[in-house]
Amino acid sequence: MPAIPDAQIYPHATGDAAEVVKQHQEPQDLVFWSGWFCPFVQRVWIALEETGIPYQYKEVNPYKKEKHFLDINPKGLVPAIEYHGKALYESLVLLEFLEEAYPSHTPKLLPADPYDRAVARIWLDHITKNILPANHRLLQLPEKQDENREALYEAQRKLAQKVKGPYFFGEDFGIVDAAIAPWVQRDWTLSENRGYDRNAVSEAWVKYARALTERPSVRRTLSLKEHYIPIYSRYLKNEAQSEAAKAIREGRAIP
Amino acid sequence: MPAIPDAQIYPHATGDAAEVVKQHQEPQDLVFWSGWFCPFVQRVWIALEETGIPYQYKEVNPYKKEKHFLDINPKGLVPAIEYHGKALYESLVLLEFLEEAYPSHTPKLLPADPYDRAVARIWLDHITKNILPANHRLLQLPEKQDENREALYEAQRKLAQKVKGPYFFGEDFGIVDAAIAPWVQRDWTLSENRGYDRNAVSEAWVKYARALTERPSVRRTLSLKEHYIPIYSRYLKNEAQSEAAKAIREGRAIP
Repeated sequence: MPAIPDAQIYPHATGDAAEVVKQHQEPQDLVFWSGWFCPFVQRVWIALEETGIPYQYKEVNPYKKEKHFLDINPKGLVPAIEYHGKALYESLVLLEFLEEAYPSHTPKLLPADPYDRAVARIWLDHITKNILPANHRLLQLPEKQDENREALYEAQRKLAQKVKGPYFFGEDFGIVDAAIAPWVQRDWTLSENRGYDRNAVSEAWVKYARALTERPSVRRTLSLKEHYIPIYSRYLKNEAQSEAAKAIREGRAIP
Repeated sequence: MPAIPDAQIYPHATGDAAEVVKQHQEPQDLVFWSGWFCPFVQRVWIALEETGIPYQYKEVNPYKKEKHFLDINPKGLVPAIEYHGKALYESLVLLEFLEEAYPSHTPKLLPADPYDRAVARIWLDHITKNILPANHRLLQLPEKQDENREALYEAQRKLAQKVKGPYFFGEDFGIVDAAIAPWVQRDWTLSENRGYDRNAVSEAWVKYARALTERPSVRRTLSLKEHYIPIYSRYLKNEAQSEAAKAIREGRAIP
């Protein structure tokens, strides 16, 4: 995510996530270039944990990016995947890539039926265009908090109406769940500072949020809260320098 | 596109496009719900023409939407595809759907290799997040025209650098080409009114733009210029009421 890093980012994953990192140090065909704190990164990390695709974890130090990483991925963005020496980026593109690069690997995060796959992509688009911008505006902007909170509730409510339960497509955890879970897991930033309340969205949302945050792949890719706090306090003061933060400040779409 | 329609839209396709409509009146498993003037619609229309997938064309009258259309697609958005009685929308989702719902159908718009497919999606994302917003801002907003024109040039230049030629992936016309062609074909709106000049982007862009606009599927889905003029004159006066127009006016992302 951050092309220009925020200051004071703790240098590596902690808590449950540190254990997962430790288990993924061996070289593999697929290298996962990560930033432990970033929700866009976590989407891909969740997918890797869900599918069991072998990967090597590498933390990108935003202050000192490795030469090899910048050689294959000149923008220096994370999440990135290096696969047989070539890099790819963009979290949702990476989720689709994992499905396609490992066709015989199960479980899958996308359903098999073309219609259902299209429905999944329509709701991924809803997350990108409606939920995340509302979430980031509420988190970051000091003005119009009531309006921004309502916009977030409305966008989450719409998604919740389509959730079969416990996950988006029913019993199987899938791509829509992986794409939204990191923000649900971080919604304490909003409830502790912005008057956000899951109960104000809908009962269906409360249930869905609980199912997501209890999912092992989601829990196991989370670090200790104390290390997220200094990062999010910069968002709350609208001082964060990530690309997403700058976009929200300037009224642009999140890149 | 327009949930609330612009006034004075000519009621049906004309010119070459009218011929194509005439050839696609027979009932088929796949119904293509269209608006002849809309560039998002044209993306899907180009894909249908390129792949030769059998389809029935239906023009949606924005003033009087058929009950059946609203029953299956309550938002009433076009482009929409009805497939065995169920509706899907969102132009890029539909392009992927056509590939997946007709797995044995050729030609394909996405390459077979997972890495190349991911590259295609990265550049579709660039079109969505960078080219189209810059294009619509320049078209629609009376202020900051120099800045908006430069942003469009820069976004188009970046895409052109990745074009293998004549099309994005080389000899085969593909999904990236289908996704950008409608705006290239309409860039007279910018050159006649906003000082836009393809030559100011790059030589590579000039070549790519020519290849796209000469492609039969792109030409054959175009109506007569005289019927686009009243529609675009409303954009140029920033009076258009499409969802895209309202989003640009309010500084939001194009939905």
